[in-house]
Amino acid sequence: MSSMAGKVIKCKAAVAWEAGKPLVIEEVEVAPPQKMEVRLKILYTALCHTDVYFWEAKGQTPVFPRIFGHEAGGIVESVGEGVTELAPGDHVLPVFTGECKECAHCKSEESNMCDLLRINTDRGVMIGDGQSRFSINGKPIYHFVGTSTFSEYTVIHVGCVAKINPSAPLDKVCVLSCGISTGLGATLNVAKPPKGSTVAVFGLGAVGLAACEGARIAGASKIFGIDLNPNRFEEAKKFGVTDFVNPKDYDKPVQEVLVEMTKGGVDRAVECTGNVNAMISAFECVHDGWGVAVLVGVPNKDAEFKTKPMNFLNERTLKGTFFGNYKPRTDLPSVVEKYMNKELELEKFITHSVPFSEINKAFDYMLKGESIRCIIRMDG
Amino acid sequence: MSSMAGKVIKCKAAVAWEAGKPLVIEEVEVAPPQKMEVRLKILYTALCHTDVYFWEAKGQTPVFPRIFGHEAGGIVESVGEGVTELAPGDHVLPVFTGECKECAHCKSEESNMCDLLRINTDRGVMIGDGQSRFSINGKPIYHFVGTSTFSEYTVIHVGCVAKINPSAPLDKVCVLSCGISTGLGATLNVAKPPKGSTVAVFGLGAVGLAACEGARIAGASKIFGIDLNPNRFEEAKKFGVTDFVNPKDYDKPVQEVLVEMTKGGVDRAVECTGNVNAMISAFECVHDGWGVAVLVGVPNKDAEFKTKPMNFLNERTLKGTFFGNYKPRTDLPSVVEKYMNKELELEKFITHSVPFSEINKAFDYMLKGESIRCIIRMDG
Ligand SMILES: NC(=O)c1ccc[n+]([C@@H]2O[C@H](COP(=O)([O-])OP(=O)(O)OC[C@H]3O[C@@H](n4cnc5c(N)ncnc54)[C@H](O)[C@@H]3O)[C@@H](O)[C@H]2O)c1
Ligand SMILES: NC(=O)c1ccc[n+]([C@@H]2O[C@H](COP(=O)([O-])OP(=O)(O)OC[C@H]3O[C@@H](n4cnc5c(N)ncnc54)[C@H](O)[C@@H]3O)[C@@H](O)[C@H]2O)c1
Ligand SMILES: [Zn+2]
Ligand SMILES: [Zn+2]
Ligand SMILES: [Zn+2]
Ligand SMILES: [Zn+2]
Repeated sequence: MSSMAGKVIKCKAAVAWEAGKPLVIEEVEVAPPQKMEVRLKILYTALCHTDVYFWEAKGQTPVFPRIFGHEAGGIVESVGEGVTELAPGDHVLPVFTGECKECAHCKSEESNMCDLLRINTDRGVMIGDGQSRFSINGKPIYHFVGTSTFSEYTVIHVGCVAKINPSAPLDKVCVLSCGISTGLGATLNVAKPPKGSTVAVFGLGAVGLAACEGARIAGASKIFGIDLNPNRFEEAKKFGVTDFVNPKDYDKPVQEVLVEMTKGGVDRAVECTGNVNAMISAFECVHDGWGVAVLVGVPNKDAEFKTKPMNFLNERTLKGTFFGNYKPRTDLPSVVEKYMNKELELEKFITHSVPFSEINKAFDYMLKGESIRCIIRMDG
Repeated sequence: MSSMAGKVIKCKAAVAWEAGKPLVIEEVEVAPPQKMEVRLKILYTALCHTDVYFWEAKGQTPVFPRIFGHEAGGIVESVGEGVTELAPGDHVLPVFTGECKECAHCKSEESNMCDLLRINTDRGVMIGDGQSRFSINGKPIYHFVGTSTFSEYTVIHVGCVAKINPSAPLDKVCVLSCGISTGLGATLNVAKPPKGSTVAVFGLGAVGLAACEGARIAGASKIFGIDLNPNRFEEAKKFGVTDFVNPKDYDKPVQEVLVEMTKGGVDRAVECTGNVNAMISAFECVHDGWGVAVLVGVPNKDAEFKTKPMNFLNERTLKGTFFGNYKPRTDLPSVVEKYMNKELELEKFITHSVPFSEINKAFDYMLKGESIRCIIRMDG
């Protein structure tokens, strides 16, 4: 245990006081971890669209002041009552969803949607006691998806913390906490392209590029990258994309274009846009008989997926995934190992890096569409 | 080879001269099998909804006069040029879809949708030479789905004929040519319920009851049978159905009823109605995290499948199947063995039996909804 175990830690955190306003680095008080919680020292964190989305808080019930951040790497500082699987000094990745290891989902080999610790973007408090562990002058500051990694120290439920190889560089593997694992797992765990098969990836943001990386690792013979933004194409080559398709360049639906290009359809498709039309295209562009499409993007609340049932009867499969079907504690360590043994390349996802004091720059890079991932160095 | 090999055979066939009019037993001439074809002596045939549907020919381009029939058991009488896998005397099941063993689908482990021999309900002739093998006074009589088993002799492409164990009773296993294998395979090959899981089957016709039989064989702990017709329920018990749900008994969607009954959803659902609302219910009643729904029913041409994409992102899978994903020649022999070793019970599907001369009675039983399967004895 650190000398601060059981005591409040004062440290710097980037506080979002209001929707859409720049974060402010403040001194916050971080309470000690309670039952089944751990307190982490965050070394590196990254920015993801989901942070930006809930920071903008358009059309949402606002939960402010709040500390965002959910992609990160850190070290356990102290642990609360009942925590036996983690000890101070352990290297870890916090995750926005968890694994209690006791519910039906955790016990199922197929699901990672833990009943207890499934993502909840509305909750700003710990599930144990309904309180926040962050405060400024006694006034609570809310948590975000149970992680709040834009702080030098944070408190997290033990079920949302993956212990990883201590020799893994945290400034690289921190990006495995969310989007990159999601895209990678969507391909490797759910679409499962056989070696030599053709894969279409819709949306070439961080998640889509990670899906491409998964297809590259699986040994796909062709990877079709589909995006409305032609600027995405140059970068995508590094992720194994062999053929670029911009739906705007055609006057027929892009699924028809892909079916023609592949003489019948791709073997696998992974949708990483959040746009329901892209979801439909992803499903309808897979080959009959064996094609599998996987939905990853989070859709608009009112969106409806529509297709002819005959597309299913012709033996196509449609699946969706949450966090790439990885169980955070059980499976993330092996994803880190994939990076360690050079199977998985993470450097190409990291386009920017800023010191903590300049965290708002990370928001600018993302909003301008310049970055894939910007690492925020907590010691800076 | 029989003494008739290479010669025209004169025999009895039930000819449909016009849409919806009773079949007429006529003397027909059956030409010898050509390249890659075999001529079969049919011993038993059964009636399926698909025969009735194309005989009624509502809203279809009519193909008459025609010889219907596609569920049957028979013996090879003679073989055409190039046929090496079958010989006179072999016991076989003809199938409305085929397996050429050379196309991408036949070579794929996942598909049974042979490019060459996939079902084609419009074609009334052989694919080899575009001719019919049936005639009366030189006037051609059209084939149906490549099988035309309502005839004492018929000619079929070798790719649509499964060679089976000669000790299997053809008056029982003849029902494995179509609907029963379709429902059985939908559960066993596609839904794949783990032992002890819960399964919902929508539609308790022959196909749905076969899906229930598959769930029973797989060791499902509960089998929910869903049908609008309460008369289906008593019979369904024999097929392992433990719980009956009639959507008409509730004023909320049946998927909500099932989710409540099972505290979260069934593990697997198999839709065997052809009704698009039942397809949507079948998908939406499966458990998040691991639920799999399989569509079997052939929908109305204009039907649209609609659901919220979130239902996929919560890790539900939707698949469809054609002929239960069985490859006719490769897989049907093992289904026959399942019957031979008493794993699969076929007797309970066979509710009626008529001599060939009374084939129109089989149509009556089916139209009145009295039969599951009516066997037609060709020697009668
Ligand atoms: N399921 C999960 O567990 C999970 C986890 C993280 C992110 N996500 C979701 O994944 C999606 C992608 O995330 P991201 O961070 O990569 O987003 P991003 O905005 O960086 O990338 C999305 C890309 O899709 C492209 N696009 C949009 N509409 C398109 C269309 N109709 N056709 C083709 N391309 C289109 C955009 O131009 C953009 O390049 C988002 O919806 C996000 O919410 C899901
Ligand atoms: N995919 C294939 O390879 C294949 C092969 C053979 C048959 N089929 C199809 O399977 C389906 C079933 O065939 P069958 O011969 O058993 O038909 P059937 O008409 O005997 O049985 C259908 C049952 O579904 C019930 N039903 C109809 N609408 C319903 C609804 N909304 N909710 C609940 N129950 C409903 C009916 O009351 C009936 O009992 C048909 O659509 C047929 O075309 C598919
Ligand atoms: Zn759990
Ligand atoms: Zn994220
Ligand atoms: Zn084939
Ligand atoms: Zn049939």
